[in-house]
Amino acid sequence: MTENLAEDLDELARGLDRDHVFHSWSAQSQLSSLVVASGRGCRVWDHAGREYLDFSSQLVNVNIGHQHPAVVQAIREQAELLTTIAPSTVSLARGEAAKRIIGHAPPGFHKVFFTNGGADANENAIRMARLHTGRDKILSTYRSYHGNTGAAIVSTGDWRRIPNEFARGHVHFFGPYLYRSEFWATTPEEESERALHHLRRVIEAEGPSSIAAILLETIPGTAGIMLPPPGYLAGVRELADRHGILLILDEVMCGFGRSGRWFAFDGYEVRPDLITFAKGVNSGYIPAGGVVISDPIAATFDDRVFPGGLTYSGHPLAMASIVATLDAMESEGIVENARAIGETEIGPALAELAERHAVIGEVRGEGVFWAIELVADRDTREPLPAAAMGRIKSGLVARGLLPFIQDNRIHVVPPCVVTVEDVAEAMPIYDEVLSTALEGEG
Amino acid sequence: MTENLAEDLDELARGLDRDHVFHSWSAQSQLSSLVVASGRGCRVWDHAGREYLDFSSQLVNVNIGHQHPAVVQAIREQAELLTTIAPSTVSLARGEAAKRIIGHAPPGFHKVFFTNGGADANENAIRMARLHTGRDKILSTYRSYHGNTGAAIVSTGDWRRIPNEFARGHVHFFGPYLYRSEFWATTPEEESERALHHLRRVIEAEGPSSIAAILLETIPGTAGIMLPPPGYLAGVRELADRHGILLILDEVMCGFGRSGRWFAFDGYEVRPDLITFAKGVNSGYIPAGGVVISDPIAATFDDRVFPGGLTYSGHPLAMASIVATLDAMESEGIVENARAIGETEIGPALAELAERHAVIGEVRGEGVFWAIELVADRDTREPLPAAAMGRIKSGLVARGLLPFIQDNRIHVVPPCVVTVEDVAEAMPIYDEVLSTALEGEG
Repeated sequence: MTENLAEDLDELARGLDRDHVFHSWSAQSQLSSLVVASGRGCRVWDHAGREYLDFSSQLVNVNIGHQHPAVVQAIREQAELLTTIAPSTVSLARGEAAKRIIGHAPPGFHKVFFTNGGADANENAIRMARLHTGRDKILSTYRSYHGNTGAAIVSTGDWRRIPNEFARGHVHFFGPYLYRSEFWATTPEEESERALHHLRRVIEAEGPSSIAAILLETIPGTAGIMLPPPGYLAGVRELADRHGILLILDEVMCGFGRSGRWFAFDGYEVRPDLITFAKGVNSGYIPAGGVVISDPIAATFDDRVFPGGLTYSGHPLAMASIVATLDAMESEGIVENARAIGETEIGPALAELAERHAVIGEVRGEGVFWAIELVADRDTREPLPAAAMGRIKSGLVARGLLPFIQDNRIHVVPPCVVTVEDVAEAMPIYDEVLSTALEGEG
Repeated sequence: MTENLAEDLDELARGLDRDHVFHSWSAQSQLSSLVVASGRGCRVWDHAGREYLDFSSQLVNVNIGHQHPAVVQAIREQAELLTTIAPSTVSLARGEAAKRIIGHAPPGFHKVFFTNGGADANENAIRMARLHTGRDKILSTYRSYHGNTGAAIVSTGDWRRIPNEFARGHVHFFGPYLYRSEFWATTPEEESERALHHLRRVIEAEGPSSIAAILLETIPGTAGIMLPPPGYLAGVRELADRHGILLILDEVMCGFGRSGRWFAFDGYEVRPDLITFAKGVNSGYIPAGGVVISDPIAATFDDRVFPGGLTYSGHPLAMASIVATLDAMESEGIVENARAIGETEIGPALAELAERHAVIGEVRGEGVFWAIELVADRDTREPLPAAAMGRIKSGLVARGLLPFIQDNRIHVVPPCVVTVEDVAEAMPIYDEVLSTALEGEG
């Protein structure tokens, strides 16, 4: 391909995008014009060959990196055989995918319900919890993201809407977040203890017997990558058990290697009743997500119809990509790599960065799941304003690094296959941009 | 592959399914054991080579038939290039897919928002309608299906939940359905007129200025394939216009060839404000859906953030499969085939079947979108009981035909590529099963 033709393709892509594509979470006049044509591992490039180091994993989903050859090959092979089939049939790929996922789950989990992504994973987990307990309320934290669906079943007219008309019963509480404690705590232990006290009070005030489940991201992701402090998750489990409340752990973003473990909760003294997943399970090569179901909840639906479903549940192409992804992650030690890189490279490098830049209020994380929290003032911890964050984002992209920016934070979230060299290349870019983009900030 | 090995694969698939897969809309102890390993056109088969004629299109989604070689090839090629990328980037495949869809839309539509399927298509259309009008209520019919999501955004804690906390404002009304009229009507014209009167009264009683949109399947699908009677959709449009209410037409099941037209509404005097789609747009080869947005609604979000999105919006692999599907449907005259087969083969054959079997209360449909309504009594129109429907289903499958059964109806919904010979093979199977499965019914 000549250089001109390649540039033309980029222009064609931009033109079509501007004319015909409506983008999420955006005002349509202020869109990105970054074209991506292809990629490999931690890199993506446009048609003209301009390359970017991907330290976003896109929406923190490409855990295995871009275009892993074994997963691409599995998709190509399954595409030849069978792309799609109704959920009610039996498919070998679906059974194999479920078996792989169960292989990474704790004892007492044997069944998987598949969805298209994380939102409908949480939808169905909530539904299972409500039907299993016969209770309505779902408790979740203010700093959380569990997906973006909320009306289709209520607008549906047929009988299937009725058992799902749960447009009620959501209660929010505060989770632990020492850097911006809601509990006037000064140590992780104090934050944990006080956050548990707060949750206990919310449960008591809402009425324990009205609560079906507590829904938590094991490590809240988009909300800020807050590792749970010591004892917190075990304490939540204890509170839940005391009142017959289920615990749903949302591992959509933190699962499948992101934290340096298969499931993030493997690092804590806690076992959930339902696990929701998406993203990392197949790095989003095909849209897929699901719920891993503990035995007592699965048994509830042995002889009782589970009133939930979707056309592409257990889609063969998605299933084949899950099998190939999990097999490659296992045989290539990709989860172990994420853990090691976090400990020996990213963590130390970010700590050093924090020493050099007063604008960094805190760095925190593990594996390939890190947040740099930027502040206008280290004492007041006032978040860095949006305009400055915008300059930082542009500065990073201009230097060839794709960042994940949320509120006043840079999330350092490369694929789990990130290398020592990639980290060594990325850190000076963050360093430089934190200096230059903030010149004249004060 | 030896026959024994093939049988073993079927058994392996069944065993894994039983052990590890949780199925939708089912009691888990009463699952199908039909294995599907591969397919082509209107046929699927298991590992051992047992073949089935697919007159269900699975969940009425495989419009182009199973394993269309051009679509499979497009998936294989795009898989080599780029499987997944964040929605915020620009992707050529996404722009090309949007352009193809716009090419089949009426004038005044230029933008497409992509989702994973039909439920989130309706989710986002509802959200657009509410934000564009500043009103809350969504009117939809009791006999409808618009997807199965309803809680994830409300359980989300971050700011993105707030503009989407529309866990309210759904009102249901009765649509036209002459065979089981809610309006004591005896002709299609009377049904249309009275159904419009009923809708007008619901609008007045709910308060016209509180209503954001009327959401309708152009032809209600799973609810029974009821073709709108003359003047009904035009009358709905007129009522909507009179009160500044938007009209969302759900073309998830009826769109992209199913009715014998690109969009089902092309056959009626009506133009919607938002069109939702999924299924047929790429026959579900990769999970995909979306919203086609009319210009005034798109303009609302030029400078205002649209608060909605999902990780896999505009997924490159899904987009490539849309491009290949729509191109193949066009170049091979697949939509025209659906229309012709409906008129000259399926329609007449079902009419003849109805003459031969008193259990058939009504047949209705067009294109490859037909319902056979079964009744215990032709005078009272009492629906045939579930047990008899179960025997009919088993009988059809045992004779090698995959049916779509819903309530007391058989939906005759083969892929749009169905041939004269396929129909000639299927009809005697329906005929025989309607005789034998109902022996001793009375």
